[in-house]
Amino acid sequence: MMENNIKYILNAVVTGLTTVEEAFEQLKILPYENIGFACLDHHRKVRTGQSEVVFCQGKETEHIITIIQHLSVHNSNVLATRLDSQKAEHILMHFPGAQYDPIARSLILHPLSEPILKGQILIITAGTADLPVAQEAWLTARYLGHESEILLDVGVSGIHRLLNNHHLLEKAEVIIVVAGMEGALASVVGGLVEQPVIAVPTSVGYGAHFQGLAPLLSMLNSCASGVGIVNIDNGYGAASLASAIVRRLPANR
Amino acid sequence: MMENNIKYILNAVVTGLTTVEEAFEQLKILPYENIGFACLDHHRKVRTGQSEVVFCQGKETEHIITIIQHLSVHNSNVLATRLDSQKAEHILMHFPGAQYDPIARSLILHPLSEPILKGQILIITAGTADLPVAQEAWLTARYLGHESEILLDVGVSGIHRLLNNHHLLEKAEVIIVVAGMEGALASVVGGLVEQPVIAVPTSVGYGAHFQGLAPLLSMLNSCASGVGIVNIDNGYGAASLASAIVRRLPANR
Amino acid sequence: MMENNIKYILNAVVTGLTTVEEAFEQLKILPYENIGFACLDHHRKVRTGQSEVVFCQGKETEHIITIIQHLSVHNSNVLATRLDSQKAEHILMHFPGAQYDPIARSLILHPLSEPILKGQILIITAGTADLPVAQEAWLTARYLGHESEILLDVGVSGIHRLLNNHHLLEKAEVIIVVAGMEGALASVVGGLVEQPVIAVPTSVGYGAHFQGLAPLLSMLNSCASGVGIVNIDNGYGAASLASAIVRRLPANR
Amino acid sequence: MMENNIKYILNAVVTGLTTVEEAFEQLKILPYENIGFACLDHHRKVRTGQSEVVFCQGKETEHIITIIQHLSVHNSNVLATRLDSQKAEHILMHFPGAQYDPIARSLILHPLSEPILKGQILIITAGTADLPVAQEAWLTARYLGHESEILLDVGVSGIHRLLNNHHLLEKAEVIIVVAGMEGALASVVGGLVEQPVIAVPTSVGYGAHFQGLAPLLSMLNSCASGVGIVNIDNGYGAASLASAIVRRLPANR
Amino acid sequence: MMENNIKYILNAVVTGLTTVEEAFEQLKILPYENIGFACLDHHRKVRTGQSEVVFCQGKETEHIITIIQHLSVHNSNVLATRLDSQKAEHILMHFPGAQYDPIARSLILHPLSEPILKGQILIITAGTADLPVAQEAWLTARYLGHESEILLDVGVSGIHRLLNNHHLLEKAEVIIVVAGMEGALASVVGGLVEQPVIAVPTSVGYGAHFQGLAPLLSMLNSCASGVGIVNIDNGYGAASLASAIVRRLPANR
Amino acid sequence: MMENNIKYILNAVVTGLTTVEEAFEQLKILPYENIGFACLDHHRKVRTGQSEVVFCQGKETEHIITIIQHLSVHNSNVLATRLDSQKAEHILMHFPGAQYDPIARSLILHPLSEPILKGQILIITAGTADLPVAQEAWLTARYLGHESEILLDVGVSGIHRLLNNHHLLEKAEVIIVVAGMEGALASVVGGLVEQPVIAVPTSVGYGAHFQGLAPLLSMLNSCASGVGIVNIDNGYGAASLASAIVRRLPANR
Amino acid sequence: MMENNIKYILNAVVTGLTTVEEAFEQLKILPYENIGFACLDHHRKVRTGQSEVVFCQGKETEHIITIIQHLSVHNSNVLATRLDSQKAEHILMHFPGAQYDPIARSLILHPLSEPILKGQILIITAGTADLPVAQEAWLTARYLGHESEILLDVGVSGIHRLLNNHHLLEKAEVIIVVAGMEGALASVVGGLVEQPVIAVPTSVGYGAHFQGLAPLLSMLNSCASGVGIVNIDNGYGAASLASAIVRRLPANR
Amino acid sequence: MMENNIKYILNAVVTGLTTVEEAFEQLKILPYENIGFACLDHHRKVRTGQSEVVFCQGKETEHIITIIQHLSVHNSNVLATRLDSQKAEHILMHFPGAQYDPIARSLILHPLSEPILKGQILIITAGTADLPVAQEAWLTARYLGHESEILLDVGVSGIHRLLNNHHLLEKAEVIIVVAGMEGALASVVGGLVEQPVIAVPTSVGYGAHFQGLAPLLSMLNSCASGVGIVNIDNGYGAASLASAIVRRLPANR
Repeated sequence: MMENNIKYILNAVVTGLTTVEEAFEQLKILPYENIGFACLDHHRKVRTGQSEVVFCQGKETEHIITIIQHLSVHNSNVLATRLDSQKAEHILMHFPGAQYDPIARSLILHPLSEPILKGQILIITAGTADLPVAQEAWLTARYLGHESEILLDVGVSGIHRLLNNHHLLEKAEVIIVVAGMEGALASVVGGLVEQPVIAVPTSVGYGAHFQGLAPLLSMLNSCASGVGIVNIDNGYGAASLASAIVRRLPANR
Repeated sequence: MMENNIKYILNAVVTGLTTVEEAFEQLKILPYENIGFACLDHHRKVRTGQSEVVFCQGKETEHIITIIQHLSVHNSNVLATRLDSQKAEHILMHFPGAQYDPIARSLILHPLSEPILKGQILIITAGTADLPVAQEAWLTARYLGHESEILLDVGVSGIHRLLNNHHLLEKAEVIIVVAGMEGALASVVGGLVEQPVIAVPTSVGYGAHFQGLAPLLSMLNSCASGVGIVNIDNGYGAASLASAIVRRLPANR
Repeated sequence: MMENNIKYILNAVVTGLTTVEEAFEQLKILPYENIGFACLDHHRKVRTGQSEVVFCQGKETEHIITIIQHLSVHNSNVLATRLDSQKAEHILMHFPGAQYDPIARSLILHPLSEPILKGQILIITAGTADLPVAQEAWLTARYLGHESEILLDVGVSGIHRLLNNHHLLEKAEVIIVVAGMEGALASVVGGLVEQPVIAVPTSVGYGAHFQGLAPLLSMLNSCASGVGIVNIDNGYGAASLASAIVRRLPANR
Repeated sequence: MMENNIKYILNAVVTGLTTVEEAFEQLKILPYENIGFACLDHHRKVRTGQSEVVFCQGKETEHIITIIQHLSVHNSNVLATRLDSQKAEHILMHFPGAQYDPIARSLILHPLSEPILKGQILIITAGTADLPVAQEAWLTARYLGHESEILLDVGVSGIHRLLNNHHLLEKAEVIIVVAGMEGALASVVGGLVEQPVIAVPTSVGYGAHFQGLAPLLSMLNSCASGVGIVNIDNGYGAASLASAIVRRLPANR
Repeated sequence: MMENNIKYILNAVVTGLTTVEEAFEQLKILPYENIGFACLDHHRKVRTGQSEVVFCQGKETEHIITIIQHLSVHNSNVLATRLDSQKAEHILMHFPGAQYDPIARSLILHPLSEPILKGQILIITAGTADLPVAQEAWLTARYLGHESEILLDVGVSGIHRLLNNHHLLEKAEVIIVVAGMEGALASVVGGLVEQPVIAVPTSVGYGAHFQGLAPLLSMLNSCASGVGIVNIDNGYGAASLASAIVRRLPANR
Repeated sequence: MMENNIKYILNAVVTGLTTVEEAFEQLKILPYENIGFACLDHHRKVRTGQSEVVFCQGKETEHIITIIQHLSVHNSNVLATRLDSQKAEHILMHFPGAQYDPIARSLILHPLSEPILKGQILIITAGTADLPVAQEAWLTARYLGHESEILLDVGVSGIHRLLNNHHLLEKAEVIIVVAGMEGALASVVGGLVEQPVIAVPTSVGYGAHFQGLAPLLSMLNSCASGVGIVNIDNGYGAASLASAIVRRLPANR
Repeated sequence: MMENNIKYILNAVVTGLTTVEEAFEQLKILPYENIGFACLDHHRKVRTGQSEVVFCQGKETEHIITIIQHLSVHNSNVLATRLDSQKAEHILMHFPGAQYDPIARSLILHPLSEPILKGQILIITAGTADLPVAQEAWLTARYLGHESEILLDVGVSGIHRLLNNHHLLEKAEVIIVVAGMEGALASVVGGLVEQPVIAVPTSVGYGAHFQGLAPLLSMLNSCASGVGIVNIDNGYGAASLASAIVRRLPANR
Repeated sequence: MMENNIKYILNAVVTGLTTVEEAFEQLKILPYENIGFACLDHHRKVRTGQSEVVFCQGKETEHIITIIQHLSVHNSNVLATRLDSQKAEHILMHFPGAQYDPIARSLILHPLSEPILKGQILIITAGTADLPVAQEAWLTARYLGHESEILLDVGVSGIHRLLNNHHLLEKAEVIIVVAGMEGALASVVGGLVEQPVIAVPTSVGYGAHFQGLAPLLSMLNSCASGVGIVNIDNGYGAASLASAIVRRLPANR
């Protein structure tokens, strides 16, 4: 599509609709907006299928507010992740219709609408303590227009809990496995299903867990095939990848 | 489908076709074959969509030969990966029609047939030295019935080499990015396309590369969305995940 | 025992006491209870000899309370570990008879009853600062029905303190060694006794201790034999393993 | 028992059977033999229940031969582990009746005799490539007088292979789980059985496996209880701990 | 120049202007001032071109004040870095003309004067959250007399944002790239420009980012040439190196 | 000396002054005192030349008070290290004559007396921020009866500050080098002097410093000879080793 | 300059010299040549000031030969690094005039010509064993047209060796410090000079050196300013950065 | 002493015996000899008490020979360490009187003479496999003029072997503890003796030993006081430190 953009502008030059200088300016300003402390990538949705999401960690509250304002001009909804409750409180005062999910630590500018894309994204967790990461994944999936469901606390220390939910696994299009501790659930699920599995290690654990290193390495070395891994606690990233997969279905193109 | 198996056997018991003891024996022996030093999982293809592949590293040559023989009874073709040339030579003497690919360090029992599944798996490498991993991915993809192509040496130190191959990116269904050094190619590709991206860090590098740790961490922390990571040098794993994604397309179900 | 369950249900089907559909439902719902945010594994005691323990870290206080309520229906007592004093305060208001041990950071729903199993579990610490981990192990052992005793501060910088308590070592059935710093106590004890030794590295130390990594590696490389290691600070895990060992004694079966 | 030794010698002094100087000499020379480059601990069997085993890695061949000779005087059999085939060849020339197991990379001075201790040690591996470690464990268990059996290749990518061997798990007294890759098998087994489980991570894997670090961390963080871990590839250590547990059974005391 | 100092003093001795003892005393006291808890290196500017900067982390507030006072005697301005706002408040009360930059977490004793050195130092960040490090670099560059500018939020997930600012890159003398996450921006810039590039990994990220380790390794393994790396979050160090480079220009000597 | 103790008791048995049972009791209780939560090693001074020091980190305030009380019975003074100011406040109320040093984070029960041992222990720091560790070393050295002096802020970025204090280096008996950042000072000092050098890495630094790992590795790999390393921030340990060295001087024996 | 290229082509379109399709083709093929297994970046010299260098590690000999052939068409000389002697032997047979430097493990297609750029690049090593890395840096610097000199074995264990070569330091334009062990030399040099310092950690060392990690961390934490670090053993990278700095001098532009 | 040198030369200038230029030349050439690929530090013995030792790892054989030749002019004997047997063979042909110790992997130019310094250096190892490191330490100690003895294989798995050699410990002036595995011996010895203890971790071990990391961390965290650590396998460094300590004894000054 970048090619198409370039060709379109080149054609406009040839036909005299655009001067060279104008064309060059268009090539430069097309895809983003510089608001001083950030370059908003409005073109991203066209390019990657997903509009820019606001990663709030390490950003000033005032900056986040301005970014949301600018993004809201070009998008029907805005998602802000990694947002602590204190900052959220300030931001909500600027956007009365917005909603903050304290478990997912995320904010959406407008309420979620009904899923518009076909194909369910199923999110499974090994334990109850993995819920925040699963919730961030669920919110992201729903924000991106997908059906999504969470199945909590079916870790391998009681493997029958998973086996008995096999029907849920079967009807999903993609499965996200969220697990801390030793992360073994990803391998067990990967060995049971034919769908792509996205594994998210969480920082739930202690001692030789090293804040998520244990399940991360475990998942990377999974003996099952068809498993892709994302960063520790990265529920957003898992849902983004799941979305990229489900959007390939013809019904969604 | 495990449920279906269980229900089928339960029904056979009810209708008197099978005794309880027989049913129990069936439940136990159904899905695999114990050949002494290995339990071949013939059921895996039904369950996960991919038949068992022989991971040869650390296995005795005689064991590999026997495993291939048993797998060949239930499968139309067999793939053996992580096979060094010395062992391969011995194995080829037992299977005259087999082919060994020294770059991919893999063996297939019968020549590759034409792709039977729709949707291309594109494999991109950052450098020429990443070829062995890319080749393992390509061979696996083709073995699993997919169209696949490799685009070599388009790393970010000359970003235009990638930009100018944008048409290749567009026509693929899934993109596998194979990169050593700092692994930045995964982020750049992830920021350009809407397809799912599978990133494979390679052990190509030295010093603070730590045998692939550098690109692994780099890819896990990618600022682009829609990227799933597999283990260092795991071309096979990347292709398996790509295959699981492409097989979801209705044309392939 | 899972076999027995399956056979029992199969037989009920054959004799007409149960329909196939009912049998299938039984197979699925038998061992756990889904309470929304958790799948309580009531079957665990039958399967592993130990009922489910509530790991509180990362769980919401309300969730913990509900889990304890549900578990208390099926169990004579409930143990909750990794529980900080703030959450404990709230929980105690719901369960007036419960007791919170601030050193072990654990809560039991009902007071400990007398040991009902034969065979002492001796817990040894290298220093006084290892007490919290030892206390968690002691409480778990006692909760599981075992006799247990703690011997504090007999680290190797004064090796005679250990040697002179040799009689305590001799009368135990299993010995748990809890040690921070360099963790050398596990090797010294392992070289002195014939009982199984369970080594628990603690995070007591600083600098190149790396929160328990030093004694963990030390214990894993112990030159003494008969030593099994559990995670850093995992007093609960050590007592669980000790319990599994002592329960094998015929007097306890 | 050290107390008993000291008391015995003290009593001999009191009754005049021994002088003070003689007593002191006895206290010093009792338990070991200095052969120049090694101090053989002949007393170890009395103290820990297991006689000294020769760890051959890093030792000169001549030293190993001399150590075996000295140990053979005080023991009915001798076990030498971590012995490569080249050194083994030289050693076998000195001990015609000895046997070398090239898979376990271990040597025994005399053929194994029948098990004399009650209670089976079951060894399970996740894959065929884990065999060498399992074999070292098996040989050690048998050398120490135990019944032992190996169940190979029942990893979690095909979880039914394990479930269908549940009867083997039930009849064992202790279960050793040997697993490379992500090591998830230990958690799954730990969640299924009531016996103590000893987990041995192996160096089978590549990339982010880091020579066994991945399954080591995975096992240390197991969500199942009743699991003790030993060093990477340490089949000998696992069998030693299993032996210490089984020897506690009254039938074996 | 140290040679020159020594020769000058030796000559003074020869010509009788200085005694040997006096010369020796001069050699010793020349370059620093001992104020009890610190040895201020007033000679540093002569030697390295940059006067001593106060690194405040871990220093007592009173000590910082005294150090600034002593340095202000020999220097026209003083820069203090890694200074938190609480300490800054106290310090500002002692130096009414001083200014504290809360984003750069740095203080300057007197307002910045106009740049006196030729050649711009351009600072680029991958994201908005990298601003504090970029700001520290900018303040240091300006304090050292250089022209400097910041270009924010042009990371590789939207590579066109960088490409379209190519003119800014071209007019700089040195380029500092500040990036967290996977740090890929350094490689992309390094592949585009002919100027020296100084890469600063930041601690912006989470999970497998390990507080900046991911971009640090990424930058050290950059496939682009002409890139030098400084410590994580070390904006000051990057600007110092940039300054050393720009000061080599003849216009600045 | 342990031999002497044993021989003395054996002789007492022979001569009838002591019964066997009494002798055995003496052997057991001789060197320590069990106060419930700690085994105080009163014998340590005889054995190692240094009485037990109270390491306060992780200990309850009440426990520390009781330990100090018991130790004060057998020792002329007591040193407590790693004591935060909050705990110290409580403890000072029990011991009116005690003194707390907030920089060294240590407490002494009685004021320091004049040095009674010959030979100075010189403590050098690379920067002012290394002062707390140096102060802990100084207090320990003085508590143990040594002359000691601190030379602050002579790090290698201004190497002349060190060279010009060469006379201080020459008159010391042992030199302790305390350095954070890259820890290069230890190598430079080690290359200049003939005395033993004890290197203490500190956690002063950031980013790739990893809380002291950088100078720790640096010091362990020092190209200079005659350098021994202690744990990160371990001022106490450095002074203990220095003390053990200086006490070997005949004047001190 | 990329802008200039685009503008030039746009202008050609406007003036009718080029059709849109032709322009688009030009934009794509301009800067590189695809030779099947590699995309040679002939445009790199224009863009970054340095032509592409062949990194030989992990590449097939035949591929290296072809790459050199193609690069030699567009460049007056070719440099190939990380080339072992065995591969070099084969390659030399194809290029009779080429020269292989076994210490630098590098090959140049034609003999070095006289330096054409002003400003010396001085390379200093801490020890003799650092020579290979220094030699790679020297060869690269000379290949890129610079004056360069090596000063060997002036590490900090004998700091006077460095001080006495101060005149060499003064006359250089950039200083590359190559050091293994603890890498302290970089800090000492950085504290003495005003030129930019490029630090190269080497893998010379053992034990806790971890193949270069120790000096890498040491250099990243240097207390001296004006120091940029490159990857372990990366002599080529150091010289590239040095070259980028020296090329900024007006005499070289 | 550097001061004295400077003063002496200054005085010579004053008295007219030396010109300024000559003095400067003297100051520069005094302490070392540049032989092209190395700067031999002949002054080191005066400065640090130990002459330069040849570290052979990574050096060319021809370079080692030349270095030995030059050092032999200024020293009565020369020690070369980390020398493999292949290089040693070539070197021995040039120095007929030299001796190579294959276990210590070290060479001495002339046979060892009788100890000339008072005070024994005792070297203790935990196992027989630690012998090479112990031997390197012993040879270095003897080369430096000290009495030295090795006590092998007294590790903590049989703690009585150490206790019964207590008399050997008592008569030593310094004790070097060489231990692999978990390195616990250092703590046990440190808790028993009053002499300074130098701990050398060795790379003897496997799995989670990580080539010596386990005992290194263990020793750094030793709960015993009076222990200094050197690099993994650094027998030479341990002996150098021991020598620096023993040389402080008045009898040796």
